[in-house]
Amino acid sequence: MVLQHPNRDQIRIENVLSALGNPIRLAAVRVLAEGGQHNCTSVLELIEVNAKSTMTHHWRVLREGGVIHQIPSGRENLVSLRRDDLDACYPGLLDAILTGARSDEAIPSGTPSARP
Amino acid sequence: MVLQHPNRDQIRIENVLSALGNPIRLAAVRVLAEGGQHNCTSVLELIEVNAKSTMTHHWRVLREGGVIHQIPSGRENLVSLRRDDLDACYPGLLDAILTGARSDEAIPSGTPSARP
Repeated sequence: MVLQHPNRDQIRIENVLSALGNPIRLAAVRVLAEGGQHNCTSVLELIEVNAKSTMTHHWRVLREGGVIHQIPSGRENLVSLRRDDLDACYPGLLDAILTGARSDEAIPSGTPSARP
Repeated sequence: MVLQHPNRDQIRIENVLSALGNPIRLAAVRVLAEGGQHNCTSVLELIEVNAKSTMTHHWRVLREGGVIHQIPSGRENLVSLRRDDLDACYPGLLDAILTGARSDEAIPSGTPSARP
């Protein structure tokens, strides 16, 4: 089965933002941002998600939004971040999001003095 | 009625991205990015949205995501972008998104050579 991906010109920012506007998908993308191709299952383990069927939906949203490449490999899928495409379409966006996700993580909810 | 807003420390990037990951909400935020307080109805007119009830939902998503302030004023609401809060929490994010939305607009869907 060949999975459909938008080409670079078909990527739209609202789809990218919507794809990344979910804690599980954002966590998965942070793993992929380390670079290279990852086995879907290994990403699930890293982000501590057990429901493989739910994750199938999340991978599709990320793929259809133009955020990841997803390539069948045997009985698994290999996933990778489309960093070149995203950086070309939206300079600075991905880095701002990844930095923002890290900074959120450092702040316990409701700590009034933790933000600049 | 006082509308609830997250304070700066309660803003989370996945909520901001999810709020902006919708063409109507993104269009409204682009109007607000011009600065100042706007009357809800005037924004609707600018972005050519007729369904006021649908927009009530969109304003709530933006407000609860920490993207806008929404303040009752007579029988209307005044809305404004929380640029200071967003820039403090996620440096560069809002500008990357606004620039990205402009660049998307310049590219007719399916034009292969339009992207860098």
